Amino acid sequence: MSAGLRSTIDVEVRYAETDQMGVVHHANYLIWFELARTHHCARTGVSYAAIEAMGYWMMVTGAELSYRRGAHYGDTVQVDCWVDRLTSRTVHFAYEVSRDSEALVSGRTDHLWVRAADRTPCRIPESLAEPFARLAHAEEEG
Amino acid sequence: MSAGLRSTIDVEVRYAETDQMGVVHHANYLIWFELARTHHCARTGVSYAAIEAMGYWMMVTGAELSYRRGAHYGDTVQVDCWVDRLTSRTVHFAYEVSRDSEALVSGRTDHLWVRAADRTPCRIPESLAEPFARLAHAEEEG
Amino acid sequence: MSAGLRSTIDVEVRYAETDQMGVVHHANYLIWFELARTHHCARTGVSYAAIEAMGYWMMVTGAELSYRRGAHYGDTVQVDCWVDRLTSRTVHFAYEVSRDSEALVSGRTDHLWVRAADRTPCRIPESLAEPFARLAHAEEEG
Amino acid sequence: MSAGLRSTIDVEVRYAETDQMGVVHHANYLIWFELARTHHCARTGVSYAAIEAMGYWMMVTGAELSYRRGAHYGDTVQVDCWVDRLTSRTVHFAYEVSRDSEALVSGRTDHLWVRAADRTPCRIPESLAEPFARLAHAEEEG
Repeated sequence: MSAGLRSTIDVEVRYAETDQMGVVHHANYLIWFELARTHHCARTGVSYAAIEAMGYWMMVTGAELSYRRGAHYGDTVQVDCWVDRLTSRTVHFAYEVSRDSEALVSGRTDHLWVRAADRTPCRIPESLAEPFARLAHAEEEG
Repeated sequence: MSAGLRSTIDVEVRYAETDQMGVVHHANYLIWFELARTHHCARTGVSYAAIEAMGYWMMVTGAELSYRRGAHYGDTVQVDCWVDRLTSRTVHFAYEVSRDSEALVSGRTDHLWVRAADRTPCRIPESLAEPFARLAHAEEEG
Repeated sequence: MSAGLRSTIDVEVRYAETDQMGVVHHANYLIWFELARTHHCARTGVSYAAIEAMGYWMMVTGAELSYRRGAHYGDTVQVDCWVDRLTSRTVHFAYEVSRDSEALVSGRTDHLWVRAADRTPCRIPESLAEPFARLAHAEEEG
Repeated sequence: MSAGLRSTIDVEVRYAETDQMGVVHHANYLIWFELARTHHCARTGVSYAAIEAMGYWMMVTGAELSYRRGAHYGDTVQVDCWVDRLTSRTVHFAYEVSRDSEALVSGRTDHLWVRAADRTPCRIPESLAEPFARLAHAEEEG
């Protein structure tokens, strides 16, 4: 049970995201995860666009998805995101997609800090260490 | 100069929508147009999902796009949509994508009313004729 | 070590598949997996399009991906697919994406047989049981 | 009637490219056009990846599509591409998507030569002028 912050975004299903089964194609959930991750990272006070501008990437090294129910065109779903685990060189996010509290899809993504200039792994940039620790461990204010 | 209603939605650029030029890939604007169209059609009081449930499609028969400036990851853009022309069998939408009043991309899409059951063109469903006429011709209040 | 058949397809990287990191966006690998799976399933003698026409789906219930190196625009990569495990109600595929024998991405997807009419899980259709068993267990002819 | 070279590629419809109408979503044709354009440009002897490595982009400034019939999952379609018009600063490509000689979709895209370093429009790079002129005007052999 993570004690960190949790962000939730609303995502409106796009027609182009459906496939001929009449539900959202399974690859799109990775894109929704990314959108929720963008919002969650911004709560450190540094947007992911700004992190890239500093010369760093949080390169995706792994992903896992578990599909229970499909989202449909016309739905607005909620995507929850939180930091599941944090090391000096990696960040692991977890996600839950739901529709009115009904669980649809859950998953995780693994990321490695990389210096963009030479594309080599590195430690989390010093200025981001404390903000990410807070993201991972702070209690939500109630 | 159209006298009809005009809808505007905010779209937050997704990382997956960028390409290696560092801007949004040009095909994604058609998907944003579609999202704005969904919102605009809903102002008839009948969502596009409900129109499909009635057994009709507004099949895309044409599209045109004009690209001036690119949107970037980190941007939230505005997509305007309005009905440019309306006939008994077709609807023509126009679009403008902008970022803080700076014009990025404009375009139009052409649609034909089609009965889903046999995929043949048809007239606009009777119950939708007046709502779409209002969408196309009503003055904005205000 | 699976003893079954293994299919390999070539995939040419599309510009639209890249993102602003200059490599293929990580969600696209699920789409390449699907393309390889389509080819692999066709070796049963029944295409996946024909399976759907019979009224069945192989619904995706899970996916896992491990990213080592990125593919670039200009690359043609190889996607290998094989059946990793087969039960009376599920099929589990494994994948490897490589470029000139250099491993890029690997993964798996889990599928449940579902009757399309009522969207309920079912056993593998009788006529497909033997062809899929052959896919999963047959030795490649040398 | 263009007298230039014409390239044709086969594209196998991907499941992810379909939408809930059961046909290929209309935005994907721009991506297929791009794939055909990549092949066509390569016939100059310089791949588009190499053109980018030289520091140039053929930035998309406009696109137009006309949809007659939809492609389906299971189809392999042909995408034809040729240079419709060429100026010192622009290239205009035309496209036809067909399935067994049945016309599905046609279109065009407009491109502007741009120096990547400062993102400003420029003339076609000198070393490419003759190869592109040949692409646009040469008679097919045979």
